[in-house]
Amino acid sequence: MNDQRTARFGVKLAVALCLVCQSVAAQESSVPPQSNNSWDSQGVAANHSSPGIKLHSVPVRAVKLGSGFWSARMEANKKRSLPSLLSQLEEHGVVDNFRRLSGRKKIERKGPLYTDSDLYKWMEAAAFVLQSGDDPQIRSSLEKMIDEVEAAQGTDGYLNTYYVDERAKERFTNFRHGHELYCLGHLLQAGIAYYRTTGERRLLDTGIRFADYAISQLGPGKKPAFAGHPEIEMALVELYRTTKQPRYLEFADYLLNSKRPELKLNERDIAYTFSGVPFATRQRFEGHSVRAMYAAGGAADYFAETRDAELMNTLGRLWQDLVTQKMYITGSVGSREVGEAIGEPYELPNEQAYTETCAAIGNYMWNWRMLAITGEAKFASIGERALYNGVLSGVSLSGDHYFYRNPLSALGRTERKPWYTTTCCPPNIQRTLASLPGYFYSTSAAGLWTHLYHNSQLDWQLESGRKIRVSQQTDYPWKNVVEFTIAPESKERFSLFLRIPEWSDRTRVSVNGADEQVISQPSSYFELNRIWQTGDKVRVTFDMPVKLIEANPRVRDNFGRVAVQRGPLVYCLEGVGNDQPSPFDISLLADENIMDDFIPEFRTEVLGGVTVIRAQAVAVKTPNSQEPLYRELDQRGSPESKQVEVTLIPYYTWANRGPSEMEVWLPWTRQAKQK
Amino acid sequence: MNDQRTARFGVKLAVALCLVCQSVAAQESSVPPQSNNSWDSQGVAANHSSPGIKLHSVPVRAVKLGSGFWSARMEANKKRSLPSLLSQLEEHGVVDNFRRLSGRKKIERKGPLYTDSDLYKWMEAAAFVLQSGDDPQIRSSLEKMIDEVEAAQGTDGYLNTYYVDERAKERFTNFRHGHELYCLGHLLQAGIAYYRTTGERRLLDTGIRFADYAISQLGPGKKPAFAGHPEIEMALVELYRTTKQPRYLEFADYLLNSKRPELKLNERDIAYTFSGVPFATRQRFEGHSVRAMYAAGGAADYFAETRDAELMNTLGRLWQDLVTQKMYITGSVGSREVGEAIGEPYELPNEQAYTETCAAIGNYMWNWRMLAITGEAKFASIGERALYNGVLSGVSLSGDHYFYRNPLSALGRTERKPWYTTTCCPPNIQRTLASLPGYFYSTSAAGLWTHLYHNSQLDWQLESGRKIRVSQQTDYPWKNVVEFTIAPESKERFSLFLRIPEWSDRTRVSVNGADEQVISQPSSYFELNRIWQTGDKVRVTFDMPVKLIEANPRVRDNFGRVAVQRGPLVYCLEGVGNDQPSPFDISLLADENIMDDFIPEFRTEVLGGVTVIRAQAVAVKTPNSQEPLYRELDQRGSPESKQVEVTLIPYYTWANRGPSEMEVWLPWTRQAKQK
Repeated sequence: MNDQRTARFGVKLAVALCLVCQSVAAQESSVPPQSNNSWDSQGVAANHSSPGIKLHSVPVRAVKLGSGFWSARMEANKKRSLPSLLSQLEEHGVVDNFRRLSGRKKIERKGPLYTDSDLYKWMEAAAFVLQSGDDPQIRSSLEKMIDEVEAAQGTDGYLNTYYVDERAKERFTNFRHGHELYCLGHLLQAGIAYYRTTGERRLLDTGIRFADYAISQLGPGKKPAFAGHPEIEMALVELYRTTKQPRYLEFADYLLNSKRPELKLNERDIAYTFSGVPFATRQRFEGHSVRAMYAAGGAADYFAETRDAELMNTLGRLWQDLVTQKMYITGSVGSREVGEAIGEPYELPNEQAYTETCAAIGNYMWNWRMLAITGEAKFASIGERALYNGVLSGVSLSGDHYFYRNPLSALGRTERKPWYTTTCCPPNIQRTLASLPGYFYSTSAAGLWTHLYHNSQLDWQLESGRKIRVSQQTDYPWKNVVEFTIAPESKERFSLFLRIPEWSDRTRVSVNGADEQVISQPSSYFELNRIWQTGDKVRVTFDMPVKLIEANPRVRDNFGRVAVQRGPLVYCLEGVGNDQPSPFDISLLADENIMDDFIPEFRTEVLGGVTVIRAQAVAVKTPNSQEPLYRELDQRGSPESKQVEVTLIPYYTWANRGPSEMEVWLPWTRQAKQK
Repeated sequence: MNDQRTARFGVKLAVALCLVCQSVAAQESSVPPQSNNSWDSQGVAANHSSPGIKLHSVPVRAVKLGSGFWSARMEANKKRSLPSLLSQLEEHGVVDNFRRLSGRKKIERKGPLYTDSDLYKWMEAAAFVLQSGDDPQIRSSLEKMIDEVEAAQGTDGYLNTYYVDERAKERFTNFRHGHELYCLGHLLQAGIAYYRTTGERRLLDTGIRFADYAISQLGPGKKPAFAGHPEIEMALVELYRTTKQPRYLEFADYLLNSKRPELKLNERDIAYTFSGVPFATRQRFEGHSVRAMYAAGGAADYFAETRDAELMNTLGRLWQDLVTQKMYITGSVGSREVGEAIGEPYELPNEQAYTETCAAIGNYMWNWRMLAITGEAKFASIGERALYNGVLSGVSLSGDHYFYRNPLSALGRTERKPWYTTTCCPPNIQRTLASLPGYFYSTSAAGLWTHLYHNSQLDWQLESGRKIRVSQQTDYPWKNVVEFTIAPESKERFSLFLRIPEWSDRTRVSVNGADEQVISQPSSYFELNRIWQTGDKVRVTFDMPVKLIEANPRVRDNFGRVAVQRGPLVYCLEGVGNDQPSPFDISLLADENIMDDFIPEFRTEVLGGVTVIRAQAVAVKTPNSQEPLYRELDQRGSPESKQVEVTLIPYYTWANRGPSEMEVWLPWTRQAKQK
């Protein structure tokens, strides 16, 4: 790293540097708004000029989190997840694969053909961490990795540690499984994230050289290509937004929308890879779940730049297909181990769920893009569901153990692991957590939109160009009140759009302690249009009761059962921590007024501090495992049972106390309780 | 075929020839009992001298079926299944693979590496068909196939169409997936079946040459080996029984019981292949379902010859594991597509069931072996369940379309096919149906045991050596009465053991119209010990109500549902043929007295003549597919519904009227009916 670069990096970080603040409201603004599209004003998506976008991104650095739910997870991410995963990537030869190319090490290549992407995702995560504030160790590690990657690039721009030596002749021949464009996509995303951290283009330019090489080889009149594992589409659109070079958008168009009969893909390939045919021809979700989610995210990004109506129709159709037939209550996607695939409608097994963390992340990313396009809260609702449940369950509270699959029922042998041979999920959750502040707010011409609730301070600007500071004080998601303090640069009329979650049936909003309004439209944005001035306070009180959720009767795995939800959190019953029979031997007791039966209670000593839910249940005295497999109906009469109290924990915290039986969907009985 | 052989074949066939008889009782005995172990007195298993056997086999040719349930299926098997599958085997190059070896055709090898076994199983089926009576076309086809197979054998005895030319060096190197011993096992079984048809040893000797070659290469002090796909164990024991050569039993011992650490198998291989470690160390069923069932069958056969107590303990443990946790109500086995595997306890998905026909057949074969060893009816009960449901569903009523997987729920796109690339199931069901008469009776020192009920005539001998004829008149399984006519060669005291099915709670038995006894022990053998003389009649009346069966609450897929069963038949609701809503939108209505609600009715016009069950149900007016995926409990209140009549059909007949939605496990409501 040369001195000039170091100096520039230092300046920018000093600007961005703001410690996570315990008392957010007291702090001064530390991020002066930049010109609308300079590197440090670009959010997770630099969609300020995108014609199809309604809600524009706010940079990660513009939102500082105070103490609470997410900052604890982000701290574990920074302090444990990133360093430990980098050690694992070193240990398993993922970094050495690059050193082998640059000649710095003489070794065999290690790991599956897509390992490059794992390092790139780690780099993207590290860059996002630095956008929230400097961390010398992570910065130093990231810079070293950039050196390693850059040094491995071929003179022609090609860069992939697998397709070298005797395999060089296989470059761009195996789109189905080869993951070359997938790896390129992650390289571009890492390069863009780092550019938006520092203004430094080195990694970005490495990616651009590879992208330009790929474009020189592939496409109309050249070698026919398809994504194989969609991912690059989102990266290409973001690269177009970053560089303004139309060729990247055109290549995304080619991959997403062109017919390519010359590829001679069979139906199975088309379904499995969710690529290779015009995206607009998709009728339903099928095939590999991560591929499908990423493809939808890419199509949404492409729509944002082009407003292609057919594409939006397709995205709407697919969204409907997902949320009415194929999504887990945790926002997870992927029902089958075979093909890591989305299943048939209503095929949502719990114990055998595939539910790869990456697919929940893909679902989150796609819905956030749909939200930015439409401003419709239904997309934010799905995003929140995925984020708090199916995404967050993918990492341990300690930050260094992961789930690849996130089942909704477990027999007691499932454990988180520090490493997977295919380790796509760990760095994916890392980049998601590290970029989370970028998902809190958006701006539109009408004003400011709130999406996520947490102690935090926004320092940014309205689209009028005037600065604004907004702080939130809340114990969300444990408690149901959020207090906003608004501080515009000067008095100004604009709208504050408050996200009303889908689970809050009646939400109360007051401004400066008066004018309380009751919003009875869950999953919407409530618009507060007024002249705002410094010190204005908005108090939002959600309706956050415990809810019992039933699944469509066609979901066999959940028939006769309920899931317990409170706020955005889905709960589960874990064997550990309950002095009681197996989760497989109980039935929740509920009557008409379930509020009396399900008691939320914050427990500092449980799982680092969570709100548990105490519930009444009936437990059979003879474990079901000792009963026959089949018997005539009513043959055993009413089995002997006793009433017990059980303690439900948030789903995302399961398997943090050792392996244990676990259930999300529990049988229930409407029955007079034995008082 | 030389003249001498033709002549001998002709004589024996003339002896065996007896057309399927419409009025069984009127016929003369056509099979004079032979010496106890001559080729034509050997049943499906030649277990007359086996020290661990309680019930001894009766030859296939000794039982002639009259009209009825099974003879219709066997007729379709002979007339449609065998000829059409042979055409398919020719068309797909399976026979040509042998011609390639013998130099009769210069072609590429076709199909997966295990195709030889498909032809061998077809040959075994053809041989069994001929044991019930000559069929010139099948005989001629079988003889041609024997020629083709024999001509392909190497001078060293090795015979496998895959491991030749450049792959010859891979012989006996890939036990895990190579299927060499599996193919050898099927060759031996075909050779033995043909030997028992005609006394002709040509195919048997071909198998023996290959077996001797394999034994010369593999085993202690030679190359270490394991079965990989168990099957050969049963074949080796049967070869030992046929030839009395201890080396075959010793090789079975090596494969089943030796430790072989030199194989360095990992846990996954050991679980998946269900071989490679001493069988007695198995704690539970796991891995590939067909491999596991066949391994258990082989272990039972080995026990029969050795009385190895540890092996029987293990078989008992595994049986308990299967029937209390891992078996479908249809007697099918195999829950997962991944690894074609048995699942976790209670993992019994319906729509995604793997339930390969071969696994149900394997379950049937194994239980029949356990029955022969123990004389315990519980094994016959599982066998009957598998045979009438999970096995028989594997072939269409027409005989020429098959299921490889036999799901218990279908979304409406599942169709039977005439051919599968892996076509193991079609010839497997053919050999099972063709050999079925061999499963009707057994003998023991105490007398004669009945297992299957059908219009039929047995001409055989008691273990005293005296001839006996037993005829059955019945419409089983549609009706609940079986009338036996007993005709011993002369007056003799012996026991007639009548199988009391597990579903008959109170069975009435009378002899010569008097002495009615009520047997209240389902799943047992009822012993009638008396002096029998010609013309004695036994009338058995089973209790055959419609039963509603519930599954253990731990079987999530069946929670809150019932299956309908009558006699040995499991029923299902198929979309086709019901002028009603989807099977996914109904709930069966039942009250305390279910007899009033479920009306069995024989319908000649339905599916070639079956007893359907008319039932009352509630159907929702808005299809569930139009309801949301998740909603708050009770949010929709009681959905609008109407009472409808539905018609259930026997499960084995489903998908014979085109693709259709189908359900075995139906939701039910205990509710006052709208009269």
